[in-house]
This record gives sequence, structure tokens and C-alpha cells, in this order.
Amino acid sequence: MTEILPTGATIGILGGGQLGRMLSVAASRLGFKTCIFEPGADCPASHVAHTHIQAPYDDANALRQFAEAVDVITYEFENIPTSALDILDALKPVRPGRDALRVSQDRVVEKAFLSEMGLMTAPFAAVDDAVDLAEAMTEIGAPGILKTRRFGYDGKGQARIMTPEDAHQALEDMKGAPAIYEGFIDFSHEVSIIGARGLTGEVACFDPGENVHRDGILRTTTLPARLSPAQRSDAVLLSAQILNKLDYVGVMGMELFVTPQGLIINEIAPRVHNSGHWTQQGCAVDQFEQHIRAVVGWPLGDGTRYADVVMENLIGNDMDRLGEIAREPRASLHLYGKADVKEGRKMGHVNRITSKG
Amino acid sequence: MTEILPTGATIGILGGGQLGRMLSVAASRLGFKTCIFEPGADCPASHVAHTHIQAPYDDANALRQFAEAVDVITYEFENIPTSALDILDALKPVRPGRDALRVSQDRVVEKAFLSEMGLMTAPFAAVDDAVDLAEAMTEIGAPGILKTRRFGYDGKGQARIMTPEDAHQALEDMKGAPAIYEGFIDFSHEVSIIGARGLTGEVACFDPGENVHRDGILRTTTLPARLSPAQRSDAVLLSAQILNKLDYVGVMGMELFVTPQGLIINEIAPRVHNSGHWTQQGCAVDQFEQHIRAVVGWPLGDGTRYADVVMENLIGNDMDRLGEIAREPRASLHLYGKADVKEGRKMGHVNRITSKG
Repeated sequence: MTEILPTGATIGILGGGQLGRMLSVAASRLGFKTCIFEPGADCPASHVAHTHIQAPYDDANALRQFAEAVDVITYEFENIPTSALDILDALKPVRPGRDALRVSQDRVVEKAFLSEMGLMTAPFAAVDDAVDLAEAMTEIGAPGILKTRRFGYDGKGQARIMTPEDAHQALEDMKGAPAIYEGFIDFSHEVSIIGARGLTGEVACFDPGENVHRDGILRTTTLPARLSPAQRSDAVLLSAQILNKLDYVGVMGMELFVTPQGLIINEIAPRVHNSGHWTQQGCAVDQFEQHIRAVVGWPLGDGTRYADVVMENLIGNDMDRLGEIAREPRASLHLYGKADVKEGRKMGHVNRITSKG
Repeated sequence: MTEILPTGATIGILGGGQLGRMLSVAASRLGFKTCIFEPGADCPASHVAHTHIQAPYDDANALRQFAEAVDVITYEFENIPTSALDILDALKPVRPGRDALRVSQDRVVEKAFLSEMGLMTAPFAAVDDAVDLAEAMTEIGAPGILKTRRFGYDGKGQARIMTPEDAHQALEDMKGAPAIYEGFIDFSHEVSIIGARGLTGEVACFDPGENVHRDGILRTTTLPARLSPAQRSDAVLLSAQILNKLDYVGVMGMELFVTPQGLIINEIAPRVHNSGHWTQQGCAVDQFEQHIRAVVGWPLGDGTRYADVVMENLIGNDMDRLGEIAREPRASLHLYGKADVKEGRKMGHVNRITSKG
């Protein structure tokens, strides 16, 4: 039997950024309260949460206080220290579970996990030093990308490598951090699929969206994506396979390269995902609510798409266009309440409804 | 020039019920914080607000503290004591303004205001005692409805009068409260229109919805409503006329009876309205965000309807159906986080998307 949290229960969220903020709002729609654990003051999620515990992730007492104040724990980012998880999951269920975190915290472990399942990824090799890198480049070929194995996001900790000279510089920039060398994939476009798995094992996926990145940061996600019916089904099957294998509970984002050879998995994220923000205007149940439903043991909701949507991220100075966007027809604005505009910082997004209806 | 509140500013909301809760969420979408003033502890709005000042409406110090903590003040209910308004609007802008409150706090004043504008209402007379009531019944005829002039909601403080005996009983039940006698209107159905007026005077209305009440409480609102194009335009014009006349800033709900003689105004509410909850799933900008945009001086958003929606209120024991509703296709659930289920209490609502798309 599945334990279902009653309305009024409190969901603990590790991380107080925009994803935590939108998870908190979704939790409120189902009658739940949230408690945010986040080291930063005045974080986006704290504006719409019931309580905010402000403490670093290595503060064992604060972590215990957090676990005691909540009924279930989830997170908005995957780089939660193992020491924090040790404390938390002894006290309250952490969903998605540790297997998902273990796999997604390290790019080498993630790619090995996917390959062992028989799924397609870019060719890759672990790189600890110059010898490893030279071997990897010989085996996989150039161009390629050198990435840190851990803690990368929005293109940070990544470098393109065209020549041995690039390789030398890129390795220096990593400052000894364990790395991964990935071969280039020749893809026509990138899509992502947001899948969800409930506590009873049921799986539901949102329609895949088509992504455009610039400078390593997602700029737009467009629905519907350019995919054949077979590719669409493949995306759903890939997502379901991975969710099942990890005995996953919650929403997972997965980026896929579309190639003539099939869909190649770029990366998976064990959380709600920027490329799923369009669901707020396109579905009866959006990715944030779907995640909350899963972690509290509710049945998954119906995420069938009922509108065409283009999501655009508002990054840094895009905020200068706010006055204009506020006047646009069929534009739904979502700002994150961040005090300072910085280059490359995600400040909000806008969902534009493009259906004819 | 219009003063526009910058993102990050704080909106004060008087009242911490479900309307305050959904206003708070909408404010967060535009990057604003909210401060809720509400006497009750653990109120629905406090779960998603930045701060909650818990104090009675006659606590002058708390009201001043509230006004100092916020940049603009709005409200989720119309029965704010005049003494509180005196304190607040000396310190910060209160939107919508006092004219709207003065008119809508008293059913006689409201109907007189509408009649003077040449708009159609039910025939009515002020009733202070049995003599007034007898005269009103003679003049207007029976059946009719006796209502308190102030503080009524969800059918509370109302009685149908068919005979002089009913009249006697109804008047006793009022316990001397000033009342209004209204003649019965023979209408085919009721619709409501949610209008908004910005700080610069621009007006925008949502598509009218068709309402069904039971036991004096709204049960469903269906979009589209059964209205001819001319009736639809009439509804918009009525709304715009009233908003302009009151130099209104914010969202106003207006209930209209559809009759062969035209649209007859049942009542107006100077706030977001239950019959506008469908906009959460049907429009790029919903009524809550539209209200926030108006009170902070932003341009109004595009509330064009892009989906057919039926909104159903979840009242009291309707919560027993939650498990079933959670599994329904194309159903978007909104619970208010109220701890106790009570008969006649609005616990949440569900927006069902009924477009074919």
C-alpha cells in the first residue's frame, strides 16, 4: 500500500531558486505547505513558501530541524552533498531517491548507467589527467567537449576541444577536477522530454519540446517539437525505461539529440527542468504539480498538452524588454523575484501561446 | 505620469482567504512579494505570502505597521471597516479606491448608484422596519428577497419572501440590521463578467462565464456562456461603464441576469471573483494577475480566452471526491489549504478544460 500525504502536510524542498519557487506554488495548489532549505537569504522560493530555513548544507542541526518540520523531502537541484542526504533520509523519505542522485551527480556514472541499459549516448571517457585526455581524443576523435564530471550547469565547466592545444588549455582550466571527454554528436536539433513516475510505479510523460540553446544556456522551448510519431514514442519509451530502472519517484528532465541514427541522450536531471516550464500554460497539470503529486504519493495528473506554446527564458538584460513583453498578446510572464540582474542569470521566462484557437 | 512599482516591491493584501492566496501567487509570478493582513492564524494566503501580520482590523498599530511594510494596498473582500481605511489610505495607496468600497459595501447604495447611471437592476427599496417592508412589498410586489444591506456573502443574510408571513419571519431573523427588499427577476440564466481597469484608465474584460448557484453558493462557471454577440458586447460595455464611473483600479466581478429585456445587474464586487477562477486555465493572464498588474501600475495583460473551461467549486464534502478528481483527465485542481472541512465552506475548485484541441 502506498502512503499518501494528506492535504495540509508539509513538503520540504532543498534549494530556494526559481524551481523551488514554482514547486512551492504547485504544492500550494494541492493544499500543501512548503519548507525551503536554502543557505541564501531572500531566495526566490522563500517568497511563496510557508517557512524558510536559512543554513548551509553542512549544518547537521539545521538539516535535522528541517527533516523534523516536514513530511517528505524533495529538491530542486542534483548536487546535494552526500553527508546531507545521510542525515535527511534517515529521518524522512527523500524523493526522488539516492539512486537518481548518485547517477546524475557524475557525468561518467550517468553515461555508463545509460550505456549499460543499451541506450545511446555520446562516446565518452573519464579524464583525470593529460594522459587520459590524449587517449580519449585518440579513441573518440576530435572535436569533442571536456566537461567537469560534477557540478556543471548552464554550460559552466565545459570547453570545446578542436585541437591538442585546446585540450591542454581546457584541462588547465579544470584545475584538476575530475572530467569527462565526450565526442561531438552531429544532430539536427535537440528536444527534451519531461517524464514522471509515481509512488506506485505509474509513468506519465509530457509532450517533448524542442530546445534552442545559446552560450550553453537554454533560450527557448517550442511545442510541438519537430519529431515523427515514431521519434515521439521513442522519447517516451526512453524516459519510462530510465524512470523504471531507477525506481524513480518524481519528475525527471531528459535532453535528447535528434539524429538519423535515433535519439541520443545528452543528459538527465532528477528534477523539474527548465525545458518543462511551457507546461504551466499548455497542460491541466504542469511539471511542478506533477512532481509534487509524485513525491506526496498522489496519482499522477493528466499532462496532455492542450495548447501550442513557446517558452522563452529571460536572461540577464532580457529584463530590459519587460515593458514590451508585459503588453504582448497571449504572453504569460513568470518572474523569479531575484533582486539583481546579472549576465547569464535566469531572471524569468515567458510562455507564449501560439495555438490558433 | 503613472507610477509603476518595480519588481521586488511588496503588495499588501487585506484578507487571508483563498482569494488572497491566489492573488499572492499571481503577485509572485510578476516578481512581487506580498504581506497579508488577516486576523486568523494559519490562513490560506499566509502559506504562499512573504509575511503575514496577524491582527484584528481595529488594531491601529498593526495597520500602520502593515502600511509601512508595503508599497501598495489591495484587498480580497469588500467589508473593510472605514476606520481601517482611514488609517491605511493616509499612508499608502489603496486600490481599488474608497469609492468602489463605499458603493459595494451597501446593497442600497450600490443599486442606487447603478440606477442613477441608467443601468438595470432589480426593483428595490430600503427596509428598516415592518412598515418599510410592507410598503416595499406593495410597491414592488411579491415574491421578493429580503437581504441585509451589508456583510452578506454566499447567500448568507438572505431570505425569499412569498407571503406576508414570510416577511414577518425574515425581518425578525435580520435582528434589526438595515435591509433591502428586492423584487424577483425572471431570468433565463446568470452570467458574470470580470472587468479590469488599469491605473492609466485602460479597460479589459474577460469573456463572460455562465454561473450556476445552489443554496446561494456558486457551484459552476462555464465558458463559453450562452450569450448572443450583442449580449456579450453589452456585458463588456456595462462593466467598462461602471469601472470608469468609479475611476476604478483593479479587477471587478459583476453578476448579470440574462432576461428578454436585456442584462440586469445582480451585484458587483470590487475584487477578484469566484466566477473568474476559470481564467487560471483559459487565459495567458488570469484575473489574479490582472488585478495585481492594475494595482502596481503595470499595463493590463491579455486575457483573451484560449480554451473552453468549466470551473466547479469544491464545497464542504465535495472534498470526499478528491481522489476521483485527482485522476480525471484535463482537470486542474486548486485547493485552498483550509484545515477543516465544513458544510458550505469553499475548500477549492477544479477547472476542467473542455476544448476539443
